[in-house]
Amino acid sequence: MSAFNELMGFTRQTQALAQVSGRLGWDQETTMPRGAAEQRAEEMAAMETVLHARRVDPQVGDWLSAVDETALDAVGKAQIRHIRRSYERTAKIPAKLAEDLARLTSRAQGQWAEARAADDFAAFVPVLEQIVTLKREEAAALADGGDLYDALLDDYEPGAKAADLEAMFTALRPGLVGLRAAALSQPAPEGVQGTFDEPAQMKLTRKLAKTFGYDFTHGRVDKAVHPFSSGSGLDVRITTRTNPTDPFNCFYSTIHEVGHACYEQNIDRAYLLTPLGGGVSMGVHESQSRIYENQLGRSRAFTGWLYGQMRDAFGEFGIADEDAFYRAVNRLQNGFIRTEADEVQYNLHVMLRFDLERALIAGDLAVRDLETAWNDRFAADFGFAVDKASHGCLQDVHWSVGLFGYFPTYSLGNVYAGCLHQALRNDVPDLDAALARGDTTPATDWLRDKVQVHGGLYEPRDVITRACGTAPSEAPLLSYLDQKFRDIYGL
Amino acid sequence: MSAFNELMGFTRQTQALAQVSGRLGWDQETTMPRGAAEQRAEEMAAMETVLHARRVDPQVGDWLSAVDETALDAVGKAQIRHIRRSYERTAKIPAKLAEDLARLTSRAQGQWAEARAADDFAAFVPVLEQIVTLKREEAAALADGGDLYDALLDDYEPGAKAADLEAMFTALRPGLVGLRAAALSQPAPEGVQGTFDEPAQMKLTRKLAKTFGYDFTHGRVDKAVHPFSSGSGLDVRITTRTNPTDPFNCFYSTIHEVGHACYEQNIDRAYLLTPLGGGVSMGVHESQSRIYENQLGRSRAFTGWLYGQMRDAFGEFGIADEDAFYRAVNRLQNGFIRTEADEVQYNLHVMLRFDLERALIAGDLAVRDLETAWNDRFAADFGFAVDKASHGCLQDVHWSVGLFGYFPTYSLGNVYAGCLHQALRNDVPDLDAALARGDTTPATDWLRDKVQVHGGLYEPRDVITRACGTAPSEAPLLSYLDQKFRDIYGL
Repeated sequence: MSAFNELMGFTRQTQALAQVSGRLGWDQETTMPRGAAEQRAEEMAAMETVLHARRVDPQVGDWLSAVDETALDAVGKAQIRHIRRSYERTAKIPAKLAEDLARLTSRAQGQWAEARAADDFAAFVPVLEQIVTLKREEAAALADGGDLYDALLDDYEPGAKAADLEAMFTALRPGLVGLRAAALSQPAPEGVQGTFDEPAQMKLTRKLAKTFGYDFTHGRVDKAVHPFSSGSGLDVRITTRTNPTDPFNCFYSTIHEVGHACYEQNIDRAYLLTPLGGGVSMGVHESQSRIYENQLGRSRAFTGWLYGQMRDAFGEFGIADEDAFYRAVNRLQNGFIRTEADEVQYNLHVMLRFDLERALIAGDLAVRDLETAWNDRFAADFGFAVDKASHGCLQDVHWSVGLFGYFPTYSLGNVYAGCLHQALRNDVPDLDAALARGDTTPATDWLRDKVQVHGGLYEPRDVITRACGTAPSEAPLLSYLDQKFRDIYGL
Repeated sequence: MSAFNELMGFTRQTQALAQVSGRLGWDQETTMPRGAAEQRAEEMAAMETVLHARRVDPQVGDWLSAVDETALDAVGKAQIRHIRRSYERTAKIPAKLAEDLARLTSRAQGQWAEARAADDFAAFVPVLEQIVTLKREEAAALADGGDLYDALLDDYEPGAKAADLEAMFTALRPGLVGLRAAALSQPAPEGVQGTFDEPAQMKLTRKLAKTFGYDFTHGRVDKAVHPFSSGSGLDVRITTRTNPTDPFNCFYSTIHEVGHACYEQNIDRAYLLTPLGGGVSMGVHESQSRIYENQLGRSRAFTGWLYGQMRDAFGEFGIADEDAFYRAVNRLQNGFIRTEADEVQYNLHVMLRFDLERALIAGDLAVRDLETAWNDRFAADFGFAVDKASHGCLQDVHWSVGLFGYFPTYSLGNVYAGCLHQALRNDVPDLDAALARGDTTPATDWLRDKVQVHGGLYEPRDVITRACGTAPSEAPLLSYLDQKFRDIYGL
């Protein structure tokens, strides 16, 4: 067992260094003095050099060859599966390509931000062309003659296939389109009014984090421009933001990030600083953040409790009762921006990106034609025209940093959340009674035991199948949305 | 020049990684969730493994052999001097010894904290015995047959010798002993009264940091249990603490750390992330913190301005006027604790430690006899008995983490501050007029240009000699203290 132990020791150190690198990212978004960026870039690059050298270290290959897998238990086998997948994947990418991509995408993020600020997609075309070219090269190196997009997708959702995702979106599309049209044809529910004191928002947001099981002895909540969750194991930090006229932005960002963070905090401690010690895929991660945020956090029962909390914290804000509050939290609105979209429309935004990025990677769509393709598709799907690039194809950072194959995991997460929610309701029939008094534990304990504790032990899809007792499908999400929004809109 | 450039590229990355490691230390003391300690220890250890491997990397030796020093300018030669010193020093210490020491001192810090909390020196004896044994081994490996203590001292104050420090302390001692006795025989000046609002303390402490030239675009001030300064170059953070009844603790800790931080912030940007890009020695570092804190911050002129600031911030606090405030800031008090000592008594505390640790390293004092030796010496020097170990030989963390040879650099810093202060007053005769209106720039600009900007370019003692135009001596410090405290106490 010596090769296994040595490999695990080395891997543990690599995981620890990766946590350090992640912590630097957190620091950069929350506490770093603004004049430190240039030095921080060198610090991050030095960490990346160290991590890359460890990931391609031939020692790892030697250990992997020497390990006797038949002598390992299920946990040991899963560790080796993760280490082997990562090692083989990295080994397939020529060092020069990896370096070129790292340099290009590190520069491109700033160029994207400038182009977005200027609403000037043309300025970003040459950069994005280079990125797509290199990502296609990377995909070809990884694909072994198989589908290019699948090869990229595998980085975020191991085992997932574009054809299956296409089938998923095809199944979701008619229901979502119909529900959207029906709801938007009705009078819009009232929204909240007035301004909401920012310290009071932060105070309630911390209470909400606690309510959803976030462990403050192993985390903290800070303000940042974008909400995110960072870290695994014993130190998982989240950020949120405040908007004086839109308190839901703060509260539901927090609940969403708490879903991600609780997944990382609740993984079996025996897996700490190993490949099993983090969330298993982007899709499963998003299933946790979305079920916390939507199926639990925006439920009639929980919003009833939240209404009382908000009345205590802010007094009157133009909403007469719990039912009106539930409608305000869940109202549909036309909008350009994915991250601000409601539960019904969110996946329509993702579909659009999935189809376009698949075409880019397949070589069926040229980068210079992307803006037109986006705008045409948006008008067709949403019924109104994109007015500027920052409301259209420049709105998301993903492509500028080389994330192709990432977007569909958001919808996969929503589908998984729908499955988990159905199974949860079957197992805990009186869930609403607890949620109505601000007690999420029947749900969060269930998710912890069924999903979170396993970390990377099972393959992503298997985690959901084991938790639900049946293979994932789109039906539970569609049926949940249909019921919820027909009720809200009296359809 | 290729060997030089490659060596500098490698060194730059190592420096960047060392900054990352330092930032983790800052995070641990300021923002880390308390449950994260176990994971953080693994993260720090992984960083240390990476840094150690780079420090002993034989490539560095090859590059050093290949560099043609005659082709380098003064800056290049200084870089090579630092890199060579560090490489040769590290290479002399057997890997096994380095590892044993790292493990032992990492554990010992907690054991020291426990022993101190229990006032139980005997419980700490076995640990400290092991540390002294290993430090003596380390010193022997480094000393090449020379003085053991000098070999350790060299880590903190390159080029310094224990015999010279002994001469320094011998020169300081009579003057300090006499001044102390004379002052303490007089009626004690009045202290401040009442409580001081903590947010108002933090607000004024930030103003003081700015007043002394601390650059908030490249730093930040947070609260921590112990005040410290962390980082070099573009990201230099300080911490302070508040005590509701003793505002000077906060303000003068801040000014002290600002002295350290401004040194790091003001080094020539061309040296960023190189061996020249940090303070050159502990002694020179302490000269900056002490001259900011004492010769400037506790001067009659500056305290006159500070009195007005404190009256504005806190109203009445039992001090009638600027002269009484000056006496309150500078009053002598009997006490056990080095870090709380006034300017006159501080160096007596250091002398005691210097003599004892030299005897420990020489093998002339056994660890089991340390407490008695400390208490006897303390009673002789200060005229009253140590009541418990936490007030005596367990008060400082240094020995538990293996810092032998560090203490005397505090006094060396005070002596250097005395020299710099004398030269500064000669160059800027109207300094007090500026200080009296809260303008430190004539002093801090002078220190920046004469000392701070050079970073590691010159040897420590040479930095002071160049700044002052004459070799350092104890006379300016003694004469400054004598004049100041004879005036305050009407001697």
